[in-house]
Amino acid sequence: MSAWVLPDHIADVLPSEARHIEELRRSLLDTARSYGYELVMPPLVEHLESLLTGTGESLDLQTFKLVDQLSGRTLGLRADSTPQVARIDAHLLNRQGVARLSYCGPVVHTRIDRPAATREPLQFGAEIYGHAGLEADLEAVELAQACLRAAGLRELQLDLADVRIIDAVLDPLGLPAAQVAQIHAALTTKDAAGLQALSQGLPAPARADLALLPTLYGDASVLAAARRGLTPSPALHAALDALQWLADRVQGMAVSIDLSDLRGYAYYTGVRFAVFARDARGPVADLARGGRYDEVGAVFGRKRPAVGFSLDLKELVAAVAPRPLEAAIRAPWGSEPGLREAIAALRAQGQTVVCALPGHDHQVDEFHCDRELVPDTARAGAWTVRTL
Amino acid sequence: MSAWVLPDHIADVLPSEARHIEELRRSLLDTARSYGYELVMPPLVEHLESLLTGTGESLDLQTFKLVDQLSGRTLGLRADSTPQVARIDAHLLNRQGVARLSYCGPVVHTRIDRPAATREPLQFGAEIYGHAGLEADLEAVELAQACLRAAGLRELQLDLADVRIIDAVLDPLGLPAAQVAQIHAALTTKDAAGLQALSQGLPAPARADLALLPTLYGDASVLAAARRGLTPSPALHAALDALQWLADRVQGMAVSIDLSDLRGYAYYTGVRFAVFARDARGPVADLARGGRYDEVGAVFGRKRPAVGFSLDLKELVAAVAPRPLEAAIRAPWGSEPGLREAIAALRAQGQTVVCALPGHDHQVDEFHCDRELVPDTARAGAWTVRTL
Repeated sequence: MSAWVLPDHIADVLPSEARHIEELRRSLLDTARSYGYELVMPPLVEHLESLLTGTGESLDLQTFKLVDQLSGRTLGLRADSTPQVARIDAHLLNRQGVARLSYCGPVVHTRIDRPAATREPLQFGAEIYGHAGLEADLEAVELAQACLRAAGLRELQLDLADVRIIDAVLDPLGLPAAQVAQIHAALTTKDAAGLQALSQGLPAPARADLALLPTLYGDASVLAAARRGLTPSPALHAALDALQWLADRVQGMAVSIDLSDLRGYAYYTGVRFAVFARDARGPVADLARGGRYDEVGAVFGRKRPAVGFSLDLKELVAAVAPRPLEAAIRAPWGSEPGLREAIAALRAQGQTVVCALPGHDHQVDEFHCDRELVPDTARAGAWTVRTL
Repeated sequence: MSAWVLPDHIADVLPSEARHIEELRRSLLDTARSYGYELVMPPLVEHLESLLTGTGESLDLQTFKLVDQLSGRTLGLRADSTPQVARIDAHLLNRQGVARLSYCGPVVHTRIDRPAATREPLQFGAEIYGHAGLEADLEAVELAQACLRAAGLRELQLDLADVRIIDAVLDPLGLPAAQVAQIHAALTTKDAAGLQALSQGLPAPARADLALLPTLYGDASVLAAARRGLTPSPALHAALDALQWLADRVQGMAVSIDLSDLRGYAYYTGVRFAVFARDARGPVADLARGGRYDEVGAVFGRKRPAVGFSLDLKELVAAVAPRPLEAAIRAPWGSEPGLREAIAALRAQGQTVVCALPGHDHQVDEFHCDRELVPDTARAGAWTVRTL
């Protein structure tokens, strides 16, 4: 086995892509900052129980474990930064009002969750804590939209769902957990026949609701159809009202709604959203994912309202058009009068100046050098940039 | 044990420091880029033998181990990015000429190497491959200097050493490895009595050399003293010539030399350097460390000349003066005509605009808001920024 073979689904990021990721990273952090989100940097490793508590529990299988030689305790290599940021909100900042936090750093997964995925996403995210109202949900959606626009994507589509819709239908029935799980699975795959079989013996209104739910997807008119067709209840109407409120206020994105969408059911407590880009390169995918998860800080002793989103910069960079490398200036190496000063001045202007080290005059291939620094024939000790 | 207690020597980075680190990170990457260094992003985890091969071997104790469920093989969580970047140079880029690469990302250590150290440094570094001449050493020194200057440090001092000095004295004697190690240890602590004891039985010139070596530190005049005092040999003179060449060409930094300095002996193969900042906050420390390590790519099948340096951004941020947070603009939340457009325009100009969510009007404490967005009393639907 060669020493240079990387593990499956782990890869180096080479110069042109790394540069593009770095540019995107700066755009996204600056966009979040312009909305008042403060950057935090949680650690890569911490005690396993901190990483997996509360909403993090489903991450157990995704999380690499290691042993802390200093304490003998088990540490985890973070597979998601969200629980860490909730811990920072709950304990370190400890603010009474609203806290807006952003983060950007690698996370590592033991296994992949989609075929071409990396096991080491570069996770960027933003979270808003301390506000239970839909204004926070709307801000999270708008920030996700602004981030994808900052990355150069224009034809954005917002998918909305709300786990409380299904709960409004199923909770009053008091079904055993196993049966609920089976119904969830059938809804997720929109398996009408399976749903019908699982609905046997349920009250007629519930059977009708479960038959209708998988058809309730499409544009915002779905909400009116749900209001007409599903068995009315305060819980159902609260969830439909929330979706309607958001759908009415989102600007510049097509809105689609899927009322039987259960992704993130164990995690989210309210509206869940995903932003797709129709002008992405490659398959259209949900590039940013988020929603409300008010339980997130409970295990840290402060159950604060929370809503946020995250995305993988490695996935994002593949979805946007590659940017050409900025061209550079080739300079000779030497101690001629004025040379070092001329190079320093160009670099201070933001130019890339690559010195050709002695013996490598024709090997400057790192950057595309379209200019070179040459002695100014008119003035001794002066240098000038010439197009190649 | 509370879920929010972090492991020893592991810490969150909170907003004001995180922002400053991010600003420094951008400055350093841009500085490296202006010298023609291309950014690469090696993974956090890879097969243990890749991380520990060759010059990485001394990292074994510092490296967290984990098991890859996909392959059953042992992975390492990187404790140093340098061997990874050498792997990228050797195998992925595979250039014949010079390659200049930079990187910036977290590394994790199982234990600390100095009392107040973090176990999770944010390592920034730059490496130049493919040039055996001293011009590459000089460029690495200059780039380290430029990076610390970009961070705001001005009173820089360059420490130079060269492992080949000691080798030139000891190699001809053909001593057993254990005795060489003892002499190294005595030299490291400048233990004159210990050195005298260990020198018993050595030829007189070697005894004199070993007695003289611990006194050969100070400014560049040390090189002339070494040339006069140490037993002449081609190897010794080559090393002294290299140090003299560099000392003559470094500009804007005081140069100090310590010829019995053996730090990194197992790692470096030529000149070793460290840059100190006398105007650093807190204790003066070697903020950037580097040197020549030509063996680094050997295990990856391409033994290329290599020289580079690295620094820890978390250490650097503590050494420079804190920067005040940029002030922000407070804006109301609402659907009044023109409000969202006014906020979007300010954000597009690079301003931070924090919306006070309903019920939190007096709780915007994340940012220092010194201005607020208010309706323009003169024009309906227009908004204006007012100083608070």
